[in-house]
Amino acid sequence: MVPHGEGSEEAMVVQDENRKPISSILIVIAMQTEAMPVVNKLQLKEELDPVFPKGVPWVRYHGIYKDLHINLVRPGKDLTLGVDSVGTISASLVTYAAIQALQPDLIINAGTAGGFKVKGACISDVFLVSDVAFHDRRIPIPVFDLYGVGLRQCFSTPNLLKELNLKSGKLSTGDSLDMSPQDEASIVANDATVKDMEGAAVAYVADLFKVPAIFIKAVTDIVDGDKPTAEEFLQNLAAVTAALDLAVAQVVDFISGKCLSEL
Amino acid sequence: MVPHGEGSEEAMVVQDENRKPISSILIVIAMQTEAMPVVNKLQLKEELDPVFPKGVPWVRYHGIYKDLHINLVRPGKDLTLGVDSVGTISASLVTYAAIQALQPDLIINAGTAGGFKVKGACISDVFLVSDVAFHDRRIPIPVFDLYGVGLRQCFSTPNLLKELNLKSGKLSTGDSLDMSPQDEASIVANDATVKDMEGAAVAYVADLFKVPAIFIKAVTDIVDGDKPTAEEFLQNLAAVTAALDLAVAQVVDFISGKCLSEL
Repeated sequence: MVPHGEGSEEAMVVQDENRKPISSILIVIAMQTEAMPVVNKLQLKEELDPVFPKGVPWVRYHGIYKDLHINLVRPGKDLTLGVDSVGTISASLVTYAAIQALQPDLIINAGTAGGFKVKGACISDVFLVSDVAFHDRRIPIPVFDLYGVGLRQCFSTPNLLKELNLKSGKLSTGDSLDMSPQDEASIVANDATVKDMEGAAVAYVADLFKVPAIFIKAVTDIVDGDKPTAEEFLQNLAAVTAALDLAVAQVVDFISGKCLSEL
Repeated sequence: MVPHGEGSEEAMVVQDENRKPISSILIVIAMQTEAMPVVNKLQLKEELDPVFPKGVPWVRYHGIYKDLHINLVRPGKDLTLGVDSVGTISASLVTYAAIQALQPDLIINAGTAGGFKVKGACISDVFLVSDVAFHDRRIPIPVFDLYGVGLRQCFSTPNLLKELNLKSGKLSTGDSLDMSPQDEASIVANDATVKDMEGAAVAYVADLFKVPAIFIKAVTDIVDGDKPTAEEFLQNLAAVTAALDLAVAQVVDFISGKCLSEL
């Protein structure tokens, strides 16, 4: 998710960019319940100015925290049904519009996720994601199959990972909360430890514009456990968002004053 | 997909809008093979001006055809893999960006689809879609389940349907070319005759901005037949795009000089 190449003019520009202190962060969070503790912790305020076009339910919070311009966006409530606009389409759209309007140096996609105990995940674990991919875009035609999987390496932050003592693992994204046998096979093929409904979509859009992106996912339910996902998810949502909120604040604290190459 | 209500100021504005001749159409097509015959038929030219941000692979063709401003957009080739950027995320993004930049009066999403023979679909049939929904967004939590399905009525065009003698049916959208048993159950629940990879996503974005949208889908493969989908799709793609191309041109001819309420 960061341009490669050495010696070229582009590579030198990228190197310069990576050595400037990070000044603007875009945090993308799908659900209001996940977002609000972070908004409060970082003392962000809801902005009603027209960064987004009229008609969309997307919500933006903004503030300056330890010299960082922080924008937190969420896709908001579905205009007809009133529930959070979860999933890949809304996440893509709000990420795209926010990149265009705000030109962030770094994107943080934070949220809850299902975890696989067979890969070492426990309830309330917070993962810093190494790779993202999709598990519900099966296109069995050569090359299209790889496009469907959409594997992307996340921006590498070895110092952040070590300093905050977060777990590391791969993330697999799909638009269903449950997991069909086909999803499961793809998740295994993706070697994923956590499963969410937005990450790979945010990564796709960030990659289009070469904005480095990192993914912080807190485990609300054990997918390969014995409790039904929806029940376990709702039961743990509030408690796990507290762990998520703490991790996001620690990540932002760590980023403050650093450049991309120091993360 | 069109605002309701009578007597309000908004309703009157909508009624006025519906009585003005349509002047600008946005055609959204996912694949280059599907798009090029339409581009040629309507004598559109590729536009290289920066309507879309730098970095995206999205392609726009424009022309004036029978007094209509026609913009045809496609999501273009994946920047890494070189295949058409099919599926809901790319379709959402390019539809969103095109609505913002071009403010169309009407959107036409055209493309190939799988058809169900049990619902009366045959190879090369062209359907004018009555309703769209998703079949791969299972969220078994009350209200979120409806959000996931994302059922939307298409803009109603009874005169167009009658005049062009098109088949009518419901469309179900998902990001996989194949069909898992879970997808199949959702497609049956959606009462769908045709299955594609973009329609409900285009409808979602059009609905955000209250732009009327219609969906023209030509059948390349029979999902409940005995041939493998990918093979049948590739075999019929070129021939079926000819039927699609003819139908889109007939629809544009019919629209020319009419207002929305006459469709």
